[in-house]
Amino acid sequence: MTSSFATAQALAAATPSDLPRSPLTGLMMYQPLLISTIIEYARRHYPHTEIVSRRVEGDLHRYTYADCHARSCQLAHALQQAGVALGDRVATLAWNGYRHLEAYYGVSGIGAVLHTINPRLHPEQLAYIIRHAEDKFLLFDLTFLPLVEAIAPHCPGVQWVALCGAAHMPKESKLAQLICYEDWIGAQPAQIDWPQFDECSAASLCYTSGTTGNPKGVLYSHRSTVLHAYGSALPNAINVSACDVVLPVVPMFHVNAWGLPYSTLLSGAKMVFPGPALDGKSLFEIFENERVSFSAGVPTVWLGLLTYMKQNQLQFSTFKRTVIGGSACPPAMMDSLIDDFGVEVVHGWGMTEMSPLGTAGSLMASHLALPKDQQRKILQKQGHAVYGVDMKIVNEEGQEQAWDGKSWGHLLVRGPWIASGYFKGEGGDVLHDGWFDTGDVASIDPDGYMQITDRSKDVIKSGGEWIGSIELENIAMAHPAVAQAACIGLPHPKWDERPLLVVVKKPDAEVDAPALLAFYQEKVAKWWIPDDVAFVEALPIGATGKVQKNKIREQFQDYQFPA
Amino acid sequence: MTSSFATAQALAAATPSDLPRSPLTGLMMYQPLLISTIIEYARRHYPHTEIVSRRVEGDLHRYTYADCHARSCQLAHALQQAGVALGDRVATLAWNGYRHLEAYYGVSGIGAVLHTINPRLHPEQLAYIIRHAEDKFLLFDLTFLPLVEAIAPHCPGVQWVALCGAAHMPKESKLAQLICYEDWIGAQPAQIDWPQFDECSAASLCYTSGTTGNPKGVLYSHRSTVLHAYGSALPNAINVSACDVVLPVVPMFHVNAWGLPYSTLLSGAKMVFPGPALDGKSLFEIFENERVSFSAGVPTVWLGLLTYMKQNQLQFSTFKRTVIGGSACPPAMMDSLIDDFGVEVVHGWGMTEMSPLGTAGSLMASHLALPKDQQRKILQKQGHAVYGVDMKIVNEEGQEQAWDGKSWGHLLVRGPWIASGYFKGEGGDVLHDGWFDTGDVASIDPDGYMQITDRSKDVIKSGGEWIGSIELENIAMAHPAVAQAACIGLPHPKWDERPLLVVVKKPDAEVDAPALLAFYQEKVAKWWIPDDVAFVEALPIGATGKVQKNKIREQFQDYQFPA
Repeated sequence: MTSSFATAQALAAATPSDLPRSPLTGLMMYQPLLISTIIEYARRHYPHTEIVSRRVEGDLHRYTYADCHARSCQLAHALQQAGVALGDRVATLAWNGYRHLEAYYGVSGIGAVLHTINPRLHPEQLAYIIRHAEDKFLLFDLTFLPLVEAIAPHCPGVQWVALCGAAHMPKESKLAQLICYEDWIGAQPAQIDWPQFDECSAASLCYTSGTTGNPKGVLYSHRSTVLHAYGSALPNAINVSACDVVLPVVPMFHVNAWGLPYSTLLSGAKMVFPGPALDGKSLFEIFENERVSFSAGVPTVWLGLLTYMKQNQLQFSTFKRTVIGGSACPPAMMDSLIDDFGVEVVHGWGMTEMSPLGTAGSLMASHLALPKDQQRKILQKQGHAVYGVDMKIVNEEGQEQAWDGKSWGHLLVRGPWIASGYFKGEGGDVLHDGWFDTGDVASIDPDGYMQITDRSKDVIKSGGEWIGSIELENIAMAHPAVAQAACIGLPHPKWDERPLLVVVKKPDAEVDAPALLAFYQEKVAKWWIPDDVAFVEALPIGATGKVQKNKIREQFQDYQFPA
Repeated sequence: MTSSFATAQALAAATPSDLPRSPLTGLMMYQPLLISTIIEYARRHYPHTEIVSRRVEGDLHRYTYADCHARSCQLAHALQQAGVALGDRVATLAWNGYRHLEAYYGVSGIGAVLHTINPRLHPEQLAYIIRHAEDKFLLFDLTFLPLVEAIAPHCPGVQWVALCGAAHMPKESKLAQLICYEDWIGAQPAQIDWPQFDECSAASLCYTSGTTGNPKGVLYSHRSTVLHAYGSALPNAINVSACDVVLPVVPMFHVNAWGLPYSTLLSGAKMVFPGPALDGKSLFEIFENERVSFSAGVPTVWLGLLTYMKQNQLQFSTFKRTVIGGSACPPAMMDSLIDDFGVEVVHGWGMTEMSPLGTAGSLMASHLALPKDQQRKILQKQGHAVYGVDMKIVNEEGQEQAWDGKSWGHLLVRGPWIASGYFKGEGGDVLHDGWFDTGDVASIDPDGYMQITDRSKDVIKSGGEWIGSIELENIAMAHPAVAQAACIGLPHPKWDERPLLVVVKKPDAEVDAPALLAFYQEKVAKWWIPDDVAFVEALPIGATGKVQKNKIREQFQDYQFPA
């Protein structure tokens, strides 16, 4: 009666038919976990719930779940008529809006694979992933026409669909053929018998851009998507109900907008798409006018919104709760959201390879009586694994580390919505005994709250111990003369590596290396204090707005520490 | 690319390997949805969360999720050593408590089948289902020793385990052999590599007692249990988070306590088991002392609690929300819970064959601005289908009826946690084109709220139309002279059936048939008004406390309506 799987690795790569079957099978209906069940549920059980979209055309568009279902069916028919078959890829280059949502259901619903593309990628990378994915169709918002025209010559075989009606079609275009979305789907039947197929079939595809090499594709299945929708909708995580009005700021081209296009519809909540207008004023107006109660996005979005509100002495009348992910919410922003604006803040952590939700940072019953500052410290961690996700921290030898809130380790994860590999085998075998390495270093406290301390590749290994680059940078950034700081590990003859602090000074500010290093006294262990400081004019910043530490390491490769 | 299933019937009976597979399989880890993943999650991610149980011994017992995991592992080892194999049945006759919870995980975790038995059944029925289930072990609380001694001679082959320590073991017993639970599991290892097997394997078994014939077994699978745990934990339904303290009043021998032993642990919420003491005073004390925030049970339980609190002018300090199921919450009780005690009330509706959750009655965003009495009317319905469950109403010919809040139909359901048949094929083929007939008659309004109007077999069919017996009874019960009322349909030469109202008068109250029938004027359509009233001394009541209308129909089988 023991598992027939020698290793966790073997199990993670298994399929249902590889598993031993009990002589007694449960007598429950079998229904595959397909994405089409979500739009069917939405149509049948919440037909009148609204979806509001600010369109690229500028106006507000309103319709209902029932309308969304009807048009998803029309798109499904149009695709099938055009020969799109089970497993074929259909791409989107689009903002958050109702037509994009129709693609989520129309494409995956017929067993084709929705390939959402990040328009912020370099055109060469865009062309690469379109060719790599072998996209048959690409649906794009008119905003992206120049981009599409630029890459089309490098993407033979793609059919281009403009997400608009005839009145908005470009008068002329460099594309040989351009399909008008509204004309294309308009005459199709508004209902369909969604095909039934294996729930492990591919449903959507999202490329992740590593710091080196070509982007790699994460291929979600129907099963993983539906399970992630259940898990992420739980009260400990996204916590969305039919009483909510949900505005996803996180883009639908970014890991399926954290699953909100699925979890919102299965919750019956009203959906509001802000379109491309994410400035403070536009966001505040749509929050108030549409009575938004929940939103999710990266911290920088809230910066613009809160600044606008403070300048104009505004308050939210309905906004109650936000999930913040992508990077940690700065403590001052969390304080302001909670204390100044009455918005509950939940950290979400995950990655493209995790569908994306891994952890969410809510309080437990045992924390409710704690003073506010202690609660706030808990909320600043990345939080608890959502049921479905397991995680562990391991040292260089792969040994699991204690959950004591102090020990660090490489953070590994596993679960039914976590990648077992990349599309077309890129990157080779990525699992370690059935676990996926997140590339992060983290600690986990005795209550199960995980805290990211660094990226694995940025950790500084000194004398067999680890030094966290982020903590050293945060201390430097707290110095009044420092504008930007990055801390890197460089080779050292005795200690293997030692930290070098690389600093951009504020204009007109003055500070020297000894003064900056003295600033670390009493703030960290002595052996954590950087060995030297290098002052530079600017730090290299990548396309996603993050400091590129690999470039800094290259820049200082010949650096020698003072003897 | 269309489904290879000619009918929904065929799909509901399908297995994963029957489904067409896309040429492109998702690249996500495969992990079977096993009940063992819940206890492992609880141990790893919420190890210190408390489980508090009032024991049969009288005292309060406290331990943690980690302790529960350790002892579930010990039970698993004890069972495996005793030869319990994949698919074998292990029964319980027990109250809500930590040892019962260990059986939930220890038994199902190794792929054996947890058979929870309702001790309120007649001893002959108990013996029947134990033999029918072929239980190898039966774990029982000491309360049930006399019952066990009575049925043991009729249940050969069962090994009996008393859920207690050596100090509490009965000095003498009529049982040939009696195992002491604590001794049995005490020496076993406190960890286990849970076996991996097909997620459609049977996990638990619960018999449902129909009004006629022998009880029939509903056989839940691991997949159905885990999906039900996800679905029922959603914010629209049970809505339990790690901030909650959950007290399940609904018994663990009744449809797995509505899944709370699973959904609570995957939410990280503190669990409080009240044991057998469900009187108002005991409940109030444990609610307050343990800071209970959420509870679930049948309406009658709240009656005792609220009466006690009113008599003593008490208020809850932490109790915020309850799910009420089993039967509809009387409007006056709902008003009192909400208005007098500040407790949010959610109707849950389902049945043993549905794991059990089908619908939950929460408000939608569009209802938040409605006046209180209109909101209350919505909350009095049975609510929305939870994502995973689909429902429809059909007429006698199986045609789907409109969701207009007025049309009635037989309520059919389907979904991955709904029975496709009964254990050992009892009852034959129970599906209708892939749907399960609930035996209820209901309407569904345009917003998707379902309202049960009657049991199918109690509906009165008059002149090709339906008359609801429950509505007629509710009107009669509102008459000051009426203590109890039942309305049945009896054969009528012209109208097929006509309603007869059967009434028990209040002591010393007086009313005659014409006066009672006049009471219906303006309250229902003329043709709904019963043709006659029969006064009786008492109504026949079954073991579950419900009026047995089949007995009343027998009693009046020779009745003739006045010409």
